[in-house]
Amino acid sequence: MYKKLFIPGPTHVRDEVLAAQTAPMIGHRSKDYSDLQGAVRPKLQKVLYTEQPVFLYASSGTGLMEGSIRQTVLKRALVTVCGAFSARWYEVAVANGVPADSVEVEWGQGITPEIVDAALSKGDYDVLTVTFNETSTGVMNPLKDIAALVREKYPDTVILVDAVSGMAGAKIEFDAWGLDVVLASTQKCFALPPGLAVAAVSERALKRAEQVPNRGYYFDFLNMLKYYKKDQTPATPAVSLLYALNQQLDDILAEGLDNRWNRHIEMANVVREWARKYWALFPDERFLSNTVTTVKNTRGISVADLNKALGERGAMISNGYGSKLREKTFRIAHMGDLTVADVNWLLGQINDILGLE
Amino acid sequence: MYKKLFIPGPTHVRDEVLAAQTAPMIGHRSKDYSDLQGAVRPKLQKVLYTEQPVFLYASSGTGLMEGSIRQTVLKRALVTVCGAFSARWYEVAVANGVPADSVEVEWGQGITPEIVDAALSKGDYDVLTVTFNETSTGVMNPLKDIAALVREKYPDTVILVDAVSGMAGAKIEFDAWGLDVVLASTQKCFALPPGLAVAAVSERALKRAEQVPNRGYYFDFLNMLKYYKKDQTPATPAVSLLYALNQQLDDILAEGLDNRWNRHIEMANVVREWARKYWALFPDERFLSNTVTTVKNTRGISVADLNKALGERGAMISNGYGSKLREKTFRIAHMGDLTVADVNWLLGQINDILGLE
Repeated sequence: MYKKLFIPGPTHVRDEVLAAQTAPMIGHRSKDYSDLQGAVRPKLQKVLYTEQPVFLYASSGTGLMEGSIRQTVLKRALVTVCGAFSARWYEVAVANGVPADSVEVEWGQGITPEIVDAALSKGDYDVLTVTFNETSTGVMNPLKDIAALVREKYPDTVILVDAVSGMAGAKIEFDAWGLDVVLASTQKCFALPPGLAVAAVSERALKRAEQVPNRGYYFDFLNMLKYYKKDQTPATPAVSLLYALNQQLDDILAEGLDNRWNRHIEMANVVREWARKYWALFPDERFLSNTVTTVKNTRGISVADLNKALGERGAMISNGYGSKLREKTFRIAHMGDLTVADVNWLLGQINDILGLE
Repeated sequence: MYKKLFIPGPTHVRDEVLAAQTAPMIGHRSKDYSDLQGAVRPKLQKVLYTEQPVFLYASSGTGLMEGSIRQTVLKRALVTVCGAFSARWYEVAVANGVPADSVEVEWGQGITPEIVDAALSKGDYDVLTVTFNETSTGVMNPLKDIAALVREKYPDTVILVDAVSGMAGAKIEFDAWGLDVVLASTQKCFALPPGLAVAAVSERALKRAEQVPNRGYYFDFLNMLKYYKKDQTPATPAVSLLYALNQQLDDILAEGLDNRWNRHIEMANVVREWARKYWALFPDERFLSNTVTTVKNTRGISVADLNKALGERGAMISNGYGSKLREKTFRIAHMGDLTVADVNWLLGQINDILGLE
């Protein structure tokens, strides 16, 4: 039985989007391919409110995190940590010999401009990493405010943003906020099959990359830029996923960006209300995510059993992430192409299974 | 009009394989996903004649080349170069600060065990890179003989093989030949949409990786191995491409591996005969590729115009690769799911367009 995915990625993919993958194969150096990427380009720029390049990689978001931090750090990176995924930036830096420090808040808390200011003022950092939406704790960080602080007080610091579970589900104004790399994979709020990663990259990040030796090959922004100008990629792109992306971007823009952001907020509100009524919210109320809600398992149910029962009814949610949060929390994603009706249906099923009234 | 692809990747993808991508999305930490990867695993091992692990990455082959050379070189790599793609190993090494030397033969020539022996004996190398099938020149290197030499005289040297345009089109006996990393992307002889990379990895390569600091994150074999054991991947895999791979592996094994290798040789023989009759073969006859034939443009035709005319008839071949070979050669790929009938049809069209008899 097919389970509708209410997990924070991969998310439910509509049949029309799945079907878009089946267009006949084309050569990646052909005009047909350049036409495809050329069609995708301005639509992605709209979603990210940018006139700067948006690159496409055959990769998961993790690969692109690695590529980004390798090619932008000359001195030292400051990694802000508020959960398991934001901590990955630090692991990636260490695995690449990139000098980095981390500043961590309690899980469930968010990263504030004040925390960033205090940490940046203490060291000679040229890169800051921020996780827009921390998928483990359900925290959405105040990216706009953090960026405003950095642009004002640390203008040369390159801001790398993991927006994996936020991009295309919440507004990110790349140019206006002064961000440098905002990356995501497309199986989250884009509601596409996984395998494609996207990054908006600023002039400042490109200039930085020019100075970084041993910055790597596959994710190299400067090599990518050369091909980007002719609507191609250096390595063979994931053509069938690009077909799906092109279709989905049309649908996203037809929905309207503000409508899309609002739909995510509406879904989040429904889940939050329900969570406050029957359980408790795990994150601090100031940092609630618009795309995934982490719920405290205050009733001490078996989340695994709940998910099993949901599976028999055609749905799947996520257990808490990692040994720290598994069974102590559970997560309901409300992202991508899910609707308020979908979310209401899901919560009704959970209420029915658990006998909540 | 759809053009059947006789280019060395992406290759023609059959409708059944395109359709396999549209199965509903599943979570990558679910049993459903582990069942999928678990189904793929032994079939891939059969294709590569190995009992050692075969890893799957959301990436092009280039990314996996970078990952492989980063995590296996402690001392110095010897890169064997016989064309544009084998030279990429060297570029990748340099871009990562990995110490490397290259030994190059004239384009059209192959790499022999003697050349490898002479070069390895001169330096303190712990990695050798070989390009099984050089897509630019249409050369297939005697990988088995090279590996036999290395295993005998340089037993600790790790052999990295770019088999991008050869794997699943020509026999590679990973275990029997004593190879260490054999990588490919799946849009060539696997005849899948691009976006997926595959690597068989030996115990020797894994042991080496353990000793390499800063070996990177996304392609890290040791982290991959941990997840491989439960039929998962550390990062989100390209699920829809795995559906297609699973379908295609069933079809490959139903054809029979020997039948598949022989079909590629038969197609190659047809193209070679035709090339000898009307043109000349670019590579030395000792190193002709079974998957792509590079033809000398001895008639001084416009390859671009020929391809345009072919496009109107529903086919596409490749111009020569790069400034060195463009218009001086052209390439006909005979790989993946193409048949002898397809190839005969193509050559008939070319003869008709050019008035060859």
